[in-house]
Amino acid sequence: MRLGGGALAGLTALGLMSRASGQGVPLNGLTPVDSSKRKKVIILGGGIAGMTAAYELEKLGIDSVILEPRAKAGGRCMTIRKGDVVEETNGFRQVCQFDEGQFLNPGPTRFPQWHVTIDYCRELGVDIHPFVNFNENAFLYTEGDGLGPLSGKRMRIREAKADLRGQVAELLAKVVDQDKLDEPLTAEDKERLLDFLTYEGDLSRGYRYTGSERRGFKVWPGGGTQEGELGETYRFDELLQSEVWKFFHRANEYEYQAQMYTPVGGMDNIAQALAKHVSDKLILGARVKEFRHANPGIRVVYEQDGEEKTLTGDYGIVTIPPTILRKLPNDFSPMLKNTLNIVPFQNSAKIGLQFKRRFWEEDDRIFGGVSWTNLPTGELFYPSTGFLGKKGVMVGYYIYGPKSDELSRTKPEDRIEFALKNGEKVHPQYRKEFDNAIAFSWATTPHIEGCLAHFPPAMIKTFYPLLLKPEQETYIAASWASHLGGWQAGAFESARLTVKKIYDRVQAA
Amino acid sequence: MRLGGGALAGLTALGLMSRASGQGVPLNGLTPVDSSKRKKVIILGGGIAGMTAAYELEKLGIDSVILEPRAKAGGRCMTIRKGDVVEETNGFRQVCQFDEGQFLNPGPTRFPQWHVTIDYCRELGVDIHPFVNFNENAFLYTEGDGLGPLSGKRMRIREAKADLRGQVAELLAKVVDQDKLDEPLTAEDKERLLDFLTYEGDLSRGYRYTGSERRGFKVWPGGGTQEGELGETYRFDELLQSEVWKFFHRANEYEYQAQMYTPVGGMDNIAQALAKHVSDKLILGARVKEFRHANPGIRVVYEQDGEEKTLTGDYGIVTIPPTILRKLPNDFSPMLKNTLNIVPFQNSAKIGLQFKRRFWEEDDRIFGGVSWTNLPTGELFYPSTGFLGKKGVMVGYYIYGPKSDELSRTKPEDRIEFALKNGEKVHPQYRKEFDNAIAFSWATTPHIEGCLAHFPPAMIKTFYPLLLKPEQETYIAASWASHLGGWQAGAFESARLTVKKIYDRVQAA
Repeated sequence: MRLGGGALAGLTALGLMSRASGQGVPLNGLTPVDSSKRKKVIILGGGIAGMTAAYELEKLGIDSVILEPRAKAGGRCMTIRKGDVVEETNGFRQVCQFDEGQFLNPGPTRFPQWHVTIDYCRELGVDIHPFVNFNENAFLYTEGDGLGPLSGKRMRIREAKADLRGQVAELLAKVVDQDKLDEPLTAEDKERLLDFLTYEGDLSRGYRYTGSERRGFKVWPGGGTQEGELGETYRFDELLQSEVWKFFHRANEYEYQAQMYTPVGGMDNIAQALAKHVSDKLILGARVKEFRHANPGIRVVYEQDGEEKTLTGDYGIVTIPPTILRKLPNDFSPMLKNTLNIVPFQNSAKIGLQFKRRFWEEDDRIFGGVSWTNLPTGELFYPSTGFLGKKGVMVGYYIYGPKSDELSRTKPEDRIEFALKNGEKVHPQYRKEFDNAIAFSWATTPHIEGCLAHFPPAMIKTFYPLLLKPEQETYIAASWASHLGGWQAGAFESARLTVKKIYDRVQAA
Repeated sequence: MRLGGGALAGLTALGLMSRASGQGVPLNGLTPVDSSKRKKVIILGGGIAGMTAAYELEKLGIDSVILEPRAKAGGRCMTIRKGDVVEETNGFRQVCQFDEGQFLNPGPTRFPQWHVTIDYCRELGVDIHPFVNFNENAFLYTEGDGLGPLSGKRMRIREAKADLRGQVAELLAKVVDQDKLDEPLTAEDKERLLDFLTYEGDLSRGYRYTGSERRGFKVWPGGGTQEGELGETYRFDELLQSEVWKFFHRANEYEYQAQMYTPVGGMDNIAQALAKHVSDKLILGARVKEFRHANPGIRVVYEQDGEEKTLTGDYGIVTIPPTILRKLPNDFSPMLKNTLNIVPFQNSAKIGLQFKRRFWEEDDRIFGGVSWTNLPTGELFYPSTGFLGKKGVMVGYYIYGPKSDELSRTKPEDRIEFALKNGEKVHPQYRKEFDNAIAFSWATTPHIEGCLAHFPPAMIKTFYPLLLKPEQETYIAASWASHLGGWQAGAFESARLTVKKIYDRVQAA
């Protein structure tokens, strides 16, 4: 049933992709370079960008070699399972104690339908399943001064959403009904708008919101005489004060809209499928010590098994994170060096909490999705896999920037305590059911030392373009050098673009 | 990892269920009846209600036997796969030509998290996965007089939703900003409401809606210099006229809210798991010809393999559809007979269209979900399984009542044409990619002859209670005798309730 992993099928698939949504530089239909022109590209970093570059270059008849410092390829496309060892630059060491079949994706864990990532899954034969990114039955929780009487009370997303949207629809419907809008509507449009608001807010006669089945029931409809019984609605002013509505839009944004997907069994299936295709090009455990322009070409000094080696090539593709690049002796221009110094490459930290029992499913009837809180731990993710099983791994925090930097300096057991003491405010079952955890931090992950970059608009116009300009025969390809910062799709797309640039240059030579 | 299918584990699971959401009569903790009191229950119909009754009765030490006229147990909990033969009372006969691994659930195909169905999946060891019931990337399509310039134009759900919600948020924000609301707000609440509307509508400065990334892009963000480029927004009046917003609420209603689930590989896994547990009680191919009160007890005459047989028991549970019951010689009271005659048990029809290629995924980047239309075919469902594969089965219509009755009278090839000629308005690829189909109709399905009943409010107070009243030793258990009409959960809950009533009566005797 699968199209399979062959290059031909792949080109077809990616061809369709580019027609359908416009993203991704088209590489299909390009004639491979003549063997007389064969060139060698040295790729720094065996993550998604590096391996994709090698994979696509091969299709175009261009040789490459990938230098990857870690023992396993994949970069941030990583999945942690039972027995995996997580070592940090600050000396902390964790061994994953999850049960067989449980896992944590410390980096990317989901992708939207429009990302080229999904096309690579098709091409590479990586099975996917829905990632439940939104669940009406999950919780909202805010606490703090000024948040009113609902502060510190968890509520179901469906309750807050139905009530506030109903109450707001009622407000507007009254205004419309009384012709108090600024811009006058035709009589027909007025009727239609009132109809729309009635649908939107589930309004009763007279455009009043009097509760809605959308908020769920106090007693759910059942057999016999058991009709559904609605609970009390929340007060409009109290809902506004609680600020839980600040989370409503989260799953509506274009990067998180339904439906998101994830590989069956862990995100690293993508990396490992790519690694299989480029295994003959991958040099693992290869720590780059110098990166030089060789005029023409590239010269790289690296260390492997304590031995220093030198590699030369015609072109270079640099995919390793700016945090590492900054420390690497290189011949980059002062402009590029300066840019690499200010790329806003930040940390992120994620904890996978294995619980002895899926209390969120068994007690709370939450199957997948996200509870949003204003706690320091932020969002709580329920697993999108292993439903109805015994144990499960929740993501107990997923935080960015300075907050995560601070956390990365603490001991793993303190991070766990941080997750538990916050999470138990939403789920009182936390302590009792806690089994074990992996508290992952990207800033302290050897050879990566950070997670992602989102450029502020000012930098997009100024410094960002410098990352896209080749320096002699060297190119940068990375998610942090794309408009898809923090997404694997950025790595894929940046790599494809770079491959195209090198291909064009080789063909033109 | 699974709790397993044992009775003890099951009781635990269902115990939790009832605490968590209130539905389902609790059967856990009941002491099985003493063997001196052992009774035999005759159950008419081996669907979900009948098999659940037998399964739960057994746990309580009460014997039962199930008479099922069809060759396979399960009733409407059915999955059609390659080679399955679909015969109809009007003589039409279809043999399923789907590829291996493809299927259609002609009856129930999804369930919300709060349904007891999910607890039975846990107890019976039936694996589940998310059913994608909502996808922002699916289409809206309306056509017709008075629907304005957008009539006959498909649009993405995300586009229509973001634009209309943004435009409406802008309208209200202006009114709020100018203090024109009926009920005055405090200064703080006014600020919060404006904030809320800004989030809701993705409003720009001055509370203006100027488009939103939530509607997706004309050119999606990518690598290199490719920033996202927004397309033109739809006009407010044209969107209102198009009436596409009548579909926005569909996936928000309490029965369809995120996240819904479905068994891996087909809905009938539930029925077949139950059937395995009650296999010693199931008499298949047994057509009931008479159902009598035996004063005390029950006497049933049925035909099996051309032979007429008589069975007596202490109690009876009738689960077969009212359409069949109406024709069955019985001793029911005139009141109950009258009620059975007016149960609004209606038809539904569903077509599974196998396509040679998943064009909705490959061309349109729609992975699962539903496109809503005002076409006679109604909703189009994309499969929630087999993503990225070659072929796939879409549901080309799923319609109810008189519209479906009419369709059920037409030949299968005409039903297919009906699906294709409407569906191709949304998906021009339909004809070219069409492979084969199963056009299922419940009204013409032997021994079932209908699909589901929703009682109008007036009947709930008058006739519906008559279905819940035992007549001598006979009880009705069915989804159409519950407040969960059309859902398997109704069958489960009704059966549990009936089991409890019989148990109490046996214990009291």
